[in-house]
Amino acid sequence: MTVGVWLVGARGSVATTVAIGAAAIRSALVPAQGCVTELPGFPGTLPRIADLVFGGHDITDISLRKRAERLSESGVVPATLPAQLGRDLDAADAEIRPGGVPVARLIEDLVEFRERHGLSRIVVINVSSTEPPAVPRPEFGDLALLEAAGADILPSSSRYAYAAFRAGCGYVEFTPSPGPTLPALMELAARESVPYAGRDGKTGETLVKSALAPMFAGRALRVRSWSGLNLLGGGDGATLADPAARASKEISKDRAVPAVLGEEVEGRTHIDYVADLGEWKTAWDHVTFDGFLGTRMSLQFTWQGCDSALAAPLVLDLARLVARAHEKGRVGVLPDLGYFFKDPLGSGEHGLSTQYDRLRAFAGELA
Amino acid sequence: MTVGVWLVGARGSVATTVAIGAAAIRSALVPAQGCVTELPGFPGTLPRIADLVFGGHDITDISLRKRAERLSESGVVPATLPAQLGRDLDAADAEIRPGGVPVARLIEDLVEFRERHGLSRIVVINVSSTEPPAVPRPEFGDLALLEAAGADILPSSSRYAYAAFRAGCGYVEFTPSPGPTLPALMELAARESVPYAGRDGKTGETLVKSALAPMFAGRALRVRSWSGLNLLGGGDGATLADPAARASKEISKDRAVPAVLGEEVEGRTHIDYVADLGEWKTAWDHVTFDGFLGTRMSLQFTWQGCDSALAAPLVLDLARLVARAHEKGRVGVLPDLGYFFKDPLGSGEHGLSTQYDRLRAFAGELA
Amino acid sequence: MTVGVWLVGARGSVATTVAIGAAAIRSALVPAQGCVTELPGFPGTLPRIADLVFGGHDITDISLRKRAERLSESGVVPATLPAQLGRDLDAADAEIRPGGVPVARLIEDLVEFRERHGLSRIVVINVSSTEPPAVPRPEFGDLALLEAAGADILPSSSRYAYAAFRAGCGYVEFTPSPGPTLPALMELAARESVPYAGRDGKTGETLVKSALAPMFAGRALRVRSWSGLNLLGGGDGATLADPAARASKEISKDRAVPAVLGEEVEGRTHIDYVADLGEWKTAWDHVTFDGFLGTRMSLQFTWQGCDSALAAPLVLDLARLVARAHEKGRVGVLPDLGYFFKDPLGSGEHGLSTQYDRLRAFAGELA
Amino acid sequence: MTVGVWLVGARGSVATTVAIGAAAIRSALVPAQGCVTELPGFPGTLPRIADLVFGGHDITDISLRKRAERLSESGVVPATLPAQLGRDLDAADAEIRPGGVPVARLIEDLVEFRERHGLSRIVVINVSSTEPPAVPRPEFGDLALLEAAGADILPSSSRYAYAAFRAGCGYVEFTPSPGPTLPALMELAARESVPYAGRDGKTGETLVKSALAPMFAGRALRVRSWSGLNLLGGGDGATLADPAARASKEISKDRAVPAVLGEEVEGRTHIDYVADLGEWKTAWDHVTFDGFLGTRMSLQFTWQGCDSALAAPLVLDLARLVARAHEKGRVGVLPDLGYFFKDPLGSGEHGLSTQYDRLRAFAGELA
Repeated sequence: MTVGVWLVGARGSVATTVAIGAAAIRSALVPAQGCVTELPGFPGTLPRIADLVFGGHDITDISLRKRAERLSESGVVPATLPAQLGRDLDAADAEIRPGGVPVARLIEDLVEFRERHGLSRIVVINVSSTEPPAVPRPEFGDLALLEAAGADILPSSSRYAYAAFRAGCGYVEFTPSPGPTLPALMELAARESVPYAGRDGKTGETLVKSALAPMFAGRALRVRSWSGLNLLGGGDGATLADPAARASKEISKDRAVPAVLGEEVEGRTHIDYVADLGEWKTAWDHVTFDGFLGTRMSLQFTWQGCDSALAAPLVLDLARLVARAHEKGRVGVLPDLGYFFKDPLGSGEHGLSTQYDRLRAFAGELA
Repeated sequence: MTVGVWLVGARGSVATTVAIGAAAIRSALVPAQGCVTELPGFPGTLPRIADLVFGGHDITDISLRKRAERLSESGVVPATLPAQLGRDLDAADAEIRPGGVPVARLIEDLVEFRERHGLSRIVVINVSSTEPPAVPRPEFGDLALLEAAGADILPSSSRYAYAAFRAGCGYVEFTPSPGPTLPALMELAARESVPYAGRDGKTGETLVKSALAPMFAGRALRVRSWSGLNLLGGGDGATLADPAARASKEISKDRAVPAVLGEEVEGRTHIDYVADLGEWKTAWDHVTFDGFLGTRMSLQFTWQGCDSALAAPLVLDLARLVARAHEKGRVGVLPDLGYFFKDPLGSGEHGLSTQYDRLRAFAGELA
Repeated sequence: MTVGVWLVGARGSVATTVAIGAAAIRSALVPAQGCVTELPGFPGTLPRIADLVFGGHDITDISLRKRAERLSESGVVPATLPAQLGRDLDAADAEIRPGGVPVARLIEDLVEFRERHGLSRIVVINVSSTEPPAVPRPEFGDLALLEAAGADILPSSSRYAYAAFRAGCGYVEFTPSPGPTLPALMELAARESVPYAGRDGKTGETLVKSALAPMFAGRALRVRSWSGLNLLGGGDGATLADPAARASKEISKDRAVPAVLGEEVEGRTHIDYVADLGEWKTAWDHVTFDGFLGTRMSLQFTWQGCDSALAAPLVLDLARLVARAHEKGRVGVLPDLGYFFKDPLGSGEHGLSTQYDRLRAFAGELA
Repeated sequence: MTVGVWLVGARGSVATTVAIGAAAIRSALVPAQGCVTELPGFPGTLPRIADLVFGGHDITDISLRKRAERLSESGVVPATLPAQLGRDLDAADAEIRPGGVPVARLIEDLVEFRERHGLSRIVVINVSSTEPPAVPRPEFGDLALLEAAGADILPSSSRYAYAAFRAGCGYVEFTPSPGPTLPALMELAARESVPYAGRDGKTGETLVKSALAPMFAGRALRVRSWSGLNLLGGGDGATLADPAARASKEISKDRAVPAVLGEEVEGRTHIDYVADLGEWKTAWDHVTFDGFLGTRMSLQFTWQGCDSALAAPLVLDLARLVARAHEKGRVGVLPDLGYFFKDPLGSGEHGLSTQYDRLRAFAGELA
């Protein structure tokens, strides 16, 4: 079966890394390192990475070759790949359509993509810039009202989710944006019998948090404060320099710890844009906790990662899993994919190992 | 049912913290923070902390009051407790017998302790100084040969394990010392129908390692190097300043990561004695790993903990669990207690969450 | 010669630590560790710590004994001192007057303090809470206008500076508050022939910054970004939870690096109130820099300090130096004391070693 | 005046970075970032970087082009430079002679280098692998005995120093090896009227230590312990995996702190070879110190640097300064160059700022 992966923000760092990475794996130039669904125990019934066809929407028109060269300059992509895989990048380029257009046009783009390639399934994945939280409107809560008013009133990410559902595609919200979370869109996903998952890819600091918080809980150690500072450059950093967009992100980042510990914890997470860091991110977290007899102790960690390199393989994992879930008739939110997200839709579970166990059980059901 | 807890190294920092902590919990002066078996889901059939009776062996004769005062000066124990709980400490003091005596004497001490208090069960827990790895001898591999030669040829920790088994007591090896791991002693535990568990309490840096290593494995991120430096003072630090003793510890500390990742990883863990740190420990770990397309990333953490405060509640947990397992007729090694140990006897599982799941399942069986 | 030290915020953590520390040094219970003016090379002509007499203003009336006991509970002050030095604390207590009163009253308090103890000099030192930056008024720029309007229109810290100058006392602004920096007050200091120094004691993170920034400059390494997060509890932290007050502090904290490097540097310093940290502070700084051929490198540090313990000995140093400078006829700002401050009044020099050289030269002149 | 720079270890990472960097500066492709002698205040009378001619000894014969390509792959050198500057690298290649040959041959190589290029001065700089400390021999202590026995009995680094002096060249020991420090060689330098400097370039962790230690001293804060772990890959790391070689390095690394503080300090510095780090180095230092009233505090830092990029510009600085000092008739050790070294020959000063002041004064004398 041939599966299409439609990336919203198709010329961004994450999407470019996905495109060149998938091509490099197809050409056996690199192993599929970082791809969870390539680990032992994941079923062979998932669509193969080599069989995925890429397309997407973007509002810029810089070529994927150019983007790939920039990423290789900043060390995200091996220097040799952009030249070796130029043809694949051009092919993916040819499948990118202008974003920010009316919903009707977005739907046609998806339908044409399916027909052009005879795709059995398409998964639309939003890897574009973070939006501010949605300002509530009655139409967002009721599909009938929404369709009466027209879907173009939706926030950008939700317009793409709407288009995906209407075109019979699965959808993944990889950013903290509203996307498919508006009640009217959940209604639509059910009506159209399509699955979706989200939200906000858990790629770095929050990944570590969700591995460490259960450690404290399981040892009956009381976490007294958890503070953090994220320093990041790149396009994502620039977007998050805007306080409104940052709000979505910070809310999303601060969910995991209290959810795992079952109580509010003092402290907050700061996000700073530091252009000099380019595609790289440095996060420092500081945790204070109480032990036996109230003895005070602390843990701090510094994470130095590259978000595009961390996000890209998860995008491939999600495309494979959602396409297969769609094929198996799963409809609506997929709570068992919470392992991939900071703000797991349909699930209150934030502990990393428990999420992983659920993912593997889910993958088993897809066999 | 009244359970006895017999601590080898009964005047050390860990044992003193156990004694004063149990007394403080009994007097409801502090919550049982740090005690895993007090978490929701652990059965009410475990012996109550308030019902535990303490005794032990030690080669020094400094009083528990004095030790407790020293611990409060260094911030391990709240300043007010030693005075408030002086009587309890004196009572525990009265149950401590000279260590380093012949095995026959050790056995009598345990039997007399049982009779003195009409104890249904005794759990012997070794919290004394780390020994060098045992030098193999044929007698260590065969119970008949051992009993012919006499148990006094055993390394110190193993003499205590031998005495415990002969006296019908469960045993916990909380240090990296040989203790019950010699084949002859496993034979003895089976013959005497007693359970045991170990070894080397997982209290700090290794605890964090065993929470983080599965994160890398589960995300298909390849760990390229894992290096660490442990700085610790106190009696434990002084012992580990001896290269032979340190060897046992470093071997034990370096097990978790390759076991979880399923391959050897470059790098090693250093242990330094820094007297100035007193009862406190600082550990720094540095991890390099590869992501998608081989992008290099790193994680480092600094753990600042107090080993006595971290170990003491686990000693109480182990006493409760092993006593109950004994009562339920469990014999030999208890692999499901691996959650508590750096070098889990009877189990190859080092991932913290999986160990925790097994512990909870085991606790369920003890209900 | 007997010198008076008048502390504004006389019941705060810093002032309490000053009072008990000076008493402990007088009683030879502790060495004068942390006192710069006790280092070799500082002249014997400075007033002796043992001879200083303490008084001050505060708006609260909790006793110094109570404050000292709390500080000892949080580990700032050795547990035994508050009891041993209770009488000294009561004596200092008896010299504290209500703050927040009209300037006329403040002046009388100083005059009475001088007469009561036959003091040759008084140094007023502001160690109270940080204020927001002053809202400009014409009267602040012109002494005649100010005295016409009445000094009670001044911001709180400046009222104390005004009172100090009018009473013929030297003044030290140890906070980032406006204090003596208003032109009208500089005029007054000149008219009254009194010296002053400031501002914002350089006790922790900024101290390290001012030691490291010259290292980069002197090696021709280009600093590309410098970011930081300060986590602090205590009264200071609570005050700085207020954005207006925090503004003063952040401005002050961000001066050193660009001043030393001679150019603006990307990045900023965050301040978070984390009540759980009590009297302690943890600061993390992250620096990226370019080397030869533009190679990117980084340095990060974590500072874990106790502001009161770091500030108190500097308050004693400043009292001794300003009193002696006053005696030697120095008038107006004392730029050579920049070593002690984040925002050195009268000097653009922020490099720590250069500031230290100037301080020693200045001390030489006071011999 | 044309100055020759003769590098021992001419095909190593540092030497290759020096060669390509000097060529890039000559071609105005990069600024001379990291070069101290390019800072304002250094005299124009120093030989220009663009005028330096490079040659050297090495025991391997891999081409500089190849080495430069490898360095660019590991991010030490911009990817475009090796191709752009291939001709310069070939020219430098042509001036490299086989190392490890008899002293007589080494001398001839230097003499021929001078004649070939009509050089007014040559500075020999050892940037080869670290040697173990020298095993004392009577000949090392007396020039007459040494020349009777023949210079080939010297340790490798000292043979190069001997050859340099005999050929009338200045010498810089950039490694912790014995080099010119044997009394017989000091005698020779005096007899031949040549200057020398050393030893062990202060490029990373020790640089930071020498900036921070004076901060503690100048604030009368008592350093209680200073521990560190260095993780490094590359050729240097591989050499230092040998305990004997590591000994030289660790001795050299542990000099700065006690020298600045005037007392021994608990703790040590570990060096680990971590091949995965390639040309990069990560060092973590942990410092505990006492403040006022004995309050315990701590500072830790993590340095992530590239030794070649840090060392190369200092090699250029030293070549310029030693050549000029030679021209000005300076003979023997140059203590004012201690700013560049972990183990400053001829000087007990380890404080970075004081060393920098002395360097600038010295540079002034060379004007």
